[in-house]
Amino acid sequence: MQKIGKSERLIFITSTLVQNPMKLFSLTFFCEKLSCAKSTLSEDIDLISQIFEQTGQGRLETVSGAAGGVYYIPVMKKEDEIEFLNFLKNELQNPERIVSGGFVYINDVVFNPEVIKKAARIFVRLFLEKEIDYIATVEAKGIALASYVAQYFNKPLVVARNSSKFTEGSTVNISYISGTTGKIETMTMAKKAIKKGAKVLFIDDFMRGGGTVRGMKDLLSEFESSLVGVGVLIATKDKKSVDVDYKSLLVLEELNAENKKITFSINPQVIS
Amino acid sequence: MQKIGKSERLIFITSTLVQNPMKLFSLTFFCEKLSCAKSTLSEDIDLISQIFEQTGQGRLETVSGAAGGVYYIPVMKKEDEIEFLNFLKNELQNPERIVSGGFVYINDVVFNPEVIKKAARIFVRLFLEKEIDYIATVEAKGIALASYVAQYFNKPLVVARNSSKFTEGSTVNISYISGTTGKIETMTMAKKAIKKGAKVLFIDDFMRGGGTVRGMKDLLSEFESSLVGVGVLIATKDKKSVDVDYKSLLVLEELNAENKKITFSINPQVIS
Repeated sequence: MQKIGKSERLIFITSTLVQNPMKLFSLTFFCEKLSCAKSTLSEDIDLISQIFEQTGQGRLETVSGAAGGVYYIPVMKKEDEIEFLNFLKNELQNPERIVSGGFVYINDVVFNPEVIKKAARIFVRLFLEKEIDYIATVEAKGIALASYVAQYFNKPLVVARNSSKFTEGSTVNISYISGTTGKIETMTMAKKAIKKGAKVLFIDDFMRGGGTVRGMKDLLSEFESSLVGVGVLIATKDKKSVDVDYKSLLVLEELNAENKKITFSINPQVIS
Repeated sequence: MQKIGKSERLIFITSTLVQNPMKLFSLTFFCEKLSCAKSTLSEDIDLISQIFEQTGQGRLETVSGAAGGVYYIPVMKKEDEIEFLNFLKNELQNPERIVSGGFVYINDVVFNPEVIKKAARIFVRLFLEKEIDYIATVEAKGIALASYVAQYFNKPLVVARNSSKFTEGSTVNISYISGTTGKIETMTMAKKAIKKGAKVLFIDDFMRGGGTVRGMKDLLSEFESSLVGVGVLIATKDKKSVDVDYKSLLVLEELNAENKKITFSINPQVIS
């Protein structure tokens, strides 16, 4: 950059932080890049932080000390979260979503960038205090959502599959009973996928009884790793036997294929 | 926002555009949000555009007329693309990636946010001129990458699966010969997934003979939709029978399991 004034600094800092959520940038990085003093930079960062909070575009966190710096946390304002959850609820309550067998068609939702981006931001807020090394999911419908959560947490995504593929080297396989199908299914993950002692956040689109969560927990214990939280977009009202911090955004209250009636509620835990 | 000065405007506009790639924002939206005149806003946008081009953070495109506005295109500078592709090439050439059966372990790469984010930005540049309605992929390894491409193009992602799930309503299924396994496989997609007459960009992690691409083309023709381009992270040197605009970022030149030697090259089409 040639002439570096305040405007140029603000644009560069804002763009760099927003493009790299949860990534710590040292003040030295910006000072060198923008040839400015630390005091000047601190003022810029304060201003950006203020505007973000006022407009609900996320927030900045500064870390002091030698290894310190600043990073961007892509959370939304509470009122924007509620507006989004209401929108999602109404969208899903469309009776045309009921497909044969009494299931709900949600593929368009779980692969719609506008939707999963916002859902992912809510999961960031819900699990911000956890120490997380990986985001995990099971193929295939939760992958796009989990990929956003991974992006926003700046952590690698690992995907467990339902059948092992020979292109992944040796794998760890476990069997579990799917709450959705009631059948025994297999979950497999490449041995190279997760390091020992890792803390993992599991993200999925849908949860019924929690069989998949227990499967993931067993799978992770084979890696000497642990599940620190579970975030799902939609859960049924079935009793879940899940002994880990678990949050769903929406709850499927009623699905009546005959009357073509389908009702969701917003999980009060999320918006309280 | 209370006092809205130039600094506040620049932060808000930069953050809004960068958080929503390819989404057109009318000038009126910003003028109302920031209580400023269009001429002032145009100056702000020009300045942001300049800084983005100078620092390689993407570029802004303005559309004139009543339906006009401004949007952000998340492309990288050519030199950053080359630096990234060299990094990726070196990363993949690690002999420890060769797994039994003579395959390459790439799961950590295709699910690493830092990597696929940059790869996705290159695909944006490569297919920017195409009219695109959907980004499609086949489960599971390409999904994270395709999800970024979908985000950057601001288009929905659709995922073809290898077996139909009863939760998706009626599906369209086709059989194809996988170039990787040499076997007949099935590709399935929910009937509701794609609208008629759509233009689709197919993104995947790996391509050998192109069987999956032909499968996807057949599948799309069932939806009266068409394939307008194919972007893959890595392709082998095998002859591809693919009659559509296809670009791979890297080419697998040699894989010798005995000597533990694995070599990639950067596709010259991409960086020329």
